[in-house]
Amino acid sequence: MAPMKLVVLGAAGRMGRTLVTVISETEGAVLSGAVEREGSEAIGQDAGLLAGIGTSGVLITDDIDAALAGADGIIDFTAPAASVAMAERAASGSLVHVVGTTGCSTDQDAAIAASAERTPIVKSGNMSLGVNLLAGLVEKAARALGPDAFDIEILEMHHKHKVDAPSGTALLLGEAAAKGRGISLADKSVRVRDGHTGPRPEGTIGFATLRGGSVTGEHSVILAGEGERIEISHLATDRAIFARGAVRAALWAKDRAPGLYTMADVLGL
Amino acid sequence: MAPMKLVVLGAAGRMGRTLVTVISETEGAVLSGAVEREGSEAIGQDAGLLAGIGTSGVLITDDIDAALAGADGIIDFTAPAASVAMAERAASGSLVHVVGTTGCSTDQDAAIAASAERTPIVKSGNMSLGVNLLAGLVEKAARALGPDAFDIEILEMHHKHKVDAPSGTALLLGEAAAKGRGISLADKSVRVRDGHTGPRPEGTIGFATLRGGSVTGEHSVILAGEGERIEISHLATDRAIFARGAVRAALWAKDRAPGLYTMADVLGL
Amino acid sequence: MAPMKLVVLGAAGRMGRTLVTVISETEGAVLSGAVEREGSEAIGQDAGLLAGIGTSGVLITDDIDAALAGADGIIDFTAPAASVAMAERAASGSLVHVVGTTGCSTDQDAAIAASAERTPIVKSGNMSLGVNLLAGLVEKAARALGPDAFDIEILEMHHKHKVDAPSGTALLLGEAAAKGRGISLADKSVRVRDGHTGPRPEGTIGFATLRGGSVTGEHSVILAGEGERIEISHLATDRAIFARGAVRAALWAKDRAPGLYTMADVLGL
Amino acid sequence: MAPMKLVVLGAAGRMGRTLVTVISETEGAVLSGAVEREGSEAIGQDAGLLAGIGTSGVLITDDIDAALAGADGIIDFTAPAASVAMAERAASGSLVHVVGTTGCSTDQDAAIAASAERTPIVKSGNMSLGVNLLAGLVEKAARALGPDAFDIEILEMHHKHKVDAPSGTALLLGEAAAKGRGISLADKSVRVRDGHTGPRPEGTIGFATLRGGSVTGEHSVILAGEGERIEISHLATDRAIFARGAVRAALWAKDRAPGLYTMADVLGL
Repeated sequence: MAPMKLVVLGAAGRMGRTLVTVISETEGAVLSGAVEREGSEAIGQDAGLLAGIGTSGVLITDDIDAALAGADGIIDFTAPAASVAMAERAASGSLVHVVGTTGCSTDQDAAIAASAERTPIVKSGNMSLGVNLLAGLVEKAARALGPDAFDIEILEMHHKHKVDAPSGTALLLGEAAAKGRGISLADKSVRVRDGHTGPRPEGTIGFATLRGGSVTGEHSVILAGEGERIEISHLATDRAIFARGAVRAALWAKDRAPGLYTMADVLGL
Repeated sequence: MAPMKLVVLGAAGRMGRTLVTVISETEGAVLSGAVEREGSEAIGQDAGLLAGIGTSGVLITDDIDAALAGADGIIDFTAPAASVAMAERAASGSLVHVVGTTGCSTDQDAAIAASAERTPIVKSGNMSLGVNLLAGLVEKAARALGPDAFDIEILEMHHKHKVDAPSGTALLLGEAAAKGRGISLADKSVRVRDGHTGPRPEGTIGFATLRGGSVTGEHSVILAGEGERIEISHLATDRAIFARGAVRAALWAKDRAPGLYTMADVLGL
Repeated sequence: MAPMKLVVLGAAGRMGRTLVTVISETEGAVLSGAVEREGSEAIGQDAGLLAGIGTSGVLITDDIDAALAGADGIIDFTAPAASVAMAERAASGSLVHVVGTTGCSTDQDAAIAASAERTPIVKSGNMSLGVNLLAGLVEKAARALGPDAFDIEILEMHHKHKVDAPSGTALLLGEAAAKGRGISLADKSVRVRDGHTGPRPEGTIGFATLRGGSVTGEHSVILAGEGERIEISHLATDRAIFARGAVRAALWAKDRAPGLYTMADVLGL
Repeated sequence: MAPMKLVVLGAAGRMGRTLVTVISETEGAVLSGAVEREGSEAIGQDAGLLAGIGTSGVLITDDIDAALAGADGIIDFTAPAASVAMAERAASGSLVHVVGTTGCSTDQDAAIAASAERTPIVKSGNMSLGVNLLAGLVEKAARALGPDAFDIEILEMHHKHKVDAPSGTALLLGEAAAKGRGISLADKSVRVRDGHTGPRPEGTIGFATLRGGSVTGEHSVILAGEGERIEISHLATDRAIFARGAVRAALWAKDRAPGLYTMADVLGL
């Protein structure tokens, strides 16, 4: 079977170069186009050389039509407006569109969903296979083990440069737990404990944050009951996991019916 | 709503006394009978006093018919032949029967299944909520994350007195992983690593065992990929978790249609 | 060699009964006296029966002089005023005095120290061998790995009933780390992270708190650097560890020169 | 104060390029020479460019005398014979010599020790600060918590490509534990558990091995007692930790008296 021909947007950026590398390592996928914005210094350079994996034969271009010619799919970690426009192009050309872009407005999300009526689009705020699987497992566990018997806590650790807490992924896991419990995270989350806290209120979801060193990202969801405890954890040591998830999503979406999919669909959860 | 009236078999033994304690702590459940084998020194004693929780008003008896009169369910961690006979009584009286007994032969399992055509029976080799949930999560994770990208390892730790390795629960988790992967655990398990092992064979499931101190039981299933890793763990600190799971199973089975159920059903997995 | 004869104060209380049990399990130690306050309902009862380990032959008494007659040491988890008075009696009789009492004033501490000029007294706010060893290791690690390269974080988890945070032991470990670094914990601790925190300030010691289920007590000190991380953890599953540490302290102090010792001395740190 | 001028041997290799990078990031250190073997293709190239950190102004040379002119220290992860010769040059020039080379014979070790009578030499089989600190902590813990009460287990995890088990570092930690206990590791290690093992023999040191994914290296030493447990762990996510330790060793050794030092000395253990 012919490999899936993929076009990387923002191919000279950090995520773009990682995507180029991951595609070159993935059986069944091949790089067929590499796009950068008009005026980028990278235009005309070899996408593989820029990524540090040797010559790929694909030159970086700002001519999107040329890049998409003959392609099967597009991987897109860019910006909301660009992703909306790209979804429309993908729909017109019946190309798979994998969207890792974050920060879309409700209207922008609606526009992408409209394009997804004509072509398969996979969109997720976190493209890691592991984190998405974790969220699915957490929802299931939170549903099975009720608040009368099991307390839910979410712990995360990141490097010392991170400027906010808890992490977006910790909150995503909290949402998964809240969904499993049928509650609102906003109503039930406990984000700070210091001094006289009183006993733990039943049904709450607690957060705790560690910061230090160069930790890429670690998350644990703990369900603690009387005499037993379940922990479901994800450890990332390499930011390439987001690129790997995106390439897997593209392969999964090939030849699939039009629709707006998430990583949970890709994982079969 | 009237609480569910439960009869404990083997009520003077270690598990029986724990069951008596757990029932007294569980809303919606009440102890209505306590059985010991003929000739037991405990006959005639108060089941609650024996369990160390004060007078319960239920005296231990060897008269099973008397103990079952008016009851809604039976909790049974005894022996195969006794459990087969009890399943038949449960079916005749339309009582819930929770069976934690292990070591049944194929014929004995078939006899219990036959009784389950007339009354709800919940049977499991491990009644802990947490371990059964873990097995469900592991199967799901092993299915979602394939052997080309994720390696499965199972780690367990138990107290220094344990005489076999890996633990039965570690093997149960290995079976769950193998089921998720659609492989045979027997063909794919790696139980020892020492000296020159060569690189890890793709698709295998590895086991590692720790022994020491008074650890009640800890199990972790690790799915390790490129740059990320998922860990799903269970820690037990109290053997009462098996009794708690059995009582929850009884409450779940009340008013349910006849059938042979497992803890996965109780957990809604 | 004759076993060390130990007197337990508050022998009918929860810690007292645990001490009676641990002494009965410890080679080289024997219970020779069991004291309760005047008017206690336990006076005249057998200390072993009360502890659930069978008849010990030692009856609980409120006559301290009688209880101390012929004894080698006293184990005392009582109250400040009682411990000060007991230290003076221990000094007069040249008995080992192990003091697990907390909450002494500066004057009360001075009075105990004065008694320790005449007899060996071991006093600690936490009698667990493991926690005291941990504090020693943390101090050493914090000294060896400086704040320019390693960030220190302290994580603790306790059961859902605990009403304050961080735990006293977490703070004790923070003090050990601060001592290793030659800094003041009060100046450098970060006890809350939520929302926009900015990057981690160099040289700080962070705390994070988890609450849930029936966890007896878990503490981890993390030293996180660039590309590597050290974690030093203590897990308690049984409150008897405090009694075990106290009995070990008594055996260690026997035949030792007068002085005020800590658990660090007992552990040879 | 003038920065310490360091010469990197094998500067075009993987470890050499990492050393060049780490030196450029380390305050108080500066690259003054970069050596490769005669005939290397890298001769004449800029050491910084090769390492991917931009022009350093230091060209790779095979003229060792020229490279050492004006230098303060040498970092050497090469081969035994080369390191022996380099130690002699270091001694003649009173230069600090940091030796990460492994596999020296007894005679070669003796030759290096002889050179160390005239200049400070730091030699270690594992240059990571964290692993060396861990070994020191493990020895201390194993001494404080005796075999009658605490069982020692060593767990390690590495990537799926590793071909031997347990890891060299796991064995190094086992040696540290054995030293703390005053026993021989060879006599007391348990490297395999499978099937009917019987209860854990007192005083043994157990090993367990996990393999999977891309794990750089994780080691835990567990001391498990009755009701409590200590875990001392090291997680590496980046092989640059060995280079960082070597550069720190060089800075530590500057202006120090001649002698053969280890990383334990550098860490002040």
